[in-house]
Amino acid sequence: MGKFIVVGERIHCISPAIRAAMEKMDPAPIIQRAKDQIAGGASYLDVNIGPAEKNGEELMKWAVKLIQENCDNIPLCLDTANKKAIEAGISVYNRTHGKPIVNSADAGDRISNIDLAAANDAIVITLCSKHGVPANNEERMTFCQEMLEHGLALGMDALDMWFDPLTLVIKGMQEKQPEYLEFIRQLKDMGLNSTAGLSNASNGMPKELRPVVDSVLTAMAIECGLTSAIMNPCDKRLMDTVKTCAVILNQTLYADSYLEL
Amino acid sequence: MGKFIVVGERIHCISPAIRAAMEKMDPAPIIQRAKDQIAGGASYLDVNIGPAEKNGEELMKWAVKLIQENCDNIPLCLDTANKKAIEAGISVYNRTHGKPIVNSADAGDRISNIDLAAANDAIVITLCSKHGVPANNEERMTFCQEMLEHGLALGMDALDMWFDPLTLVIKGMQEKQPEYLEFIRQLKDMGLNSTAGLSNASNGMPKELRPVVDSVLTAMAIECGLTSAIMNPCDKRLMDTVKTCAVILNQTLYADSYLEL
Repeated sequence: MGKFIVVGERIHCISPAIRAAMEKMDPAPIIQRAKDQIAGGASYLDVNIGPAEKNGEELMKWAVKLIQENCDNIPLCLDTANKKAIEAGISVYNRTHGKPIVNSADAGDRISNIDLAAANDAIVITLCSKHGVPANNEERMTFCQEMLEHGLALGMDALDMWFDPLTLVIKGMQEKQPEYLEFIRQLKDMGLNSTAGLSNASNGMPKELRPVVDSVLTAMAIECGLTSAIMNPCDKRLMDTVKTCAVILNQTLYADSYLEL
Repeated sequence: MGKFIVVGERIHCISPAIRAAMEKMDPAPIIQRAKDQIAGGASYLDVNIGPAEKNGEELMKWAVKLIQENCDNIPLCLDTANKKAIEAGISVYNRTHGKPIVNSADAGDRISNIDLAAANDAIVITLCSKHGVPANNEERMTFCQEMLEHGLALGMDALDMWFDPLTLVIKGMQEKQPEYLEFIRQLKDMGLNSTAGLSNASNGMPKELRPVVDSVLTAMAIECGLTSAIMNPCDKRLMDTVKTCAVILNQTLYADSYLEL
């Protein structure tokens, strides 16, 4: 297993500071948010510009160039429902440190995002869902297979499809968590790459509890074989967990100072 | 899978305060240490009196009665190389809340501690080692099978044998950690109970690092199916991890206040 990939989640139009910067095309807050996440340990950054129906193409091109030019061509995950905006972003994308990621396809209406990724030699996040929340792992696996076949038929490398089991909120769907972890293990056993929005699990919990739950779930998911996650690289407890998993799994050489490295 | 069992490790003659209390048969420090661990979430307490060659029988009887009488008959793990002391402890042991645990047997010179457990309807911790550190999981499994057959031939319930994969120190044996976790999963797949001295993994690390490493390893080991551990129930980060794993594995009902419960 390769080293776990942290995709920084904090350039997101839901954040008021980022939304304002995107509206005014103000570089400083976005560059700062990118640098903070890289300093925290992110090796990919998600760029979520929302639906961006009006100026999505212009906005995504601007954001991709801005972040890559100021951050040593950090690889990016292009996150919007606007397909033309994703294509526009890819047209200016620098591949020096990794392919772009299309975020995201599913086995339903969004399956054509796999075609988009295939046509552009990109990675694609493939959500194992079709119409909302998958009922169980049998459904997850059906959707996974449908997407995998779709991608392979288009000539994609299976490892460029990062399967997302769809993280479910613990408050409300607690009984579904063991099955969720089991599905990550199934993906590992199939030799597939995977990703997850792990912090969705702690949605709605008291603020002080979330880093505890996020970090424990992260350790369990990495042990199950999760190969990447979209997460907050500025959460120290979470990143300490990711680094410690890498030491325990013998992917990073232990040093007394490893948390600072 | 039943709920993970925390065996409190802090009544140990290596601790100067406990050693002094055992030498003088001074009840207060031992009762306090027992109550602190129960408050932290221990459901078993280890009682390590050391080799105790001179007065082991008297000392173990005193300690067992002292702790159980003052702590609602908390079940205990009797930990000494002196077999007569273990038998003496069992002779005064109250089984209301659980069988005594014999700590420990191995597949070598200490295999007769399985006989001791079988003769006394006790649980036994069975270390998957024979002469020091097992070379690999093949050896671990050989020793596990030898001990299992030995116990079954004596009429033991397989679930009264808690197999210990032998936790190895990360500083020095980092490359052996993934295999260690894999062995815990093998024990789970066999339907066996397991236990481990998880904090041995972080031996020799800087003091501030140990709770981080201990808690991440604990989450990973529980995900692999570990059913109990001998640990420090007064380490809040560690116990928060154990409680959070129980929530994620749907063994404890989630409540916003679950860390305080």
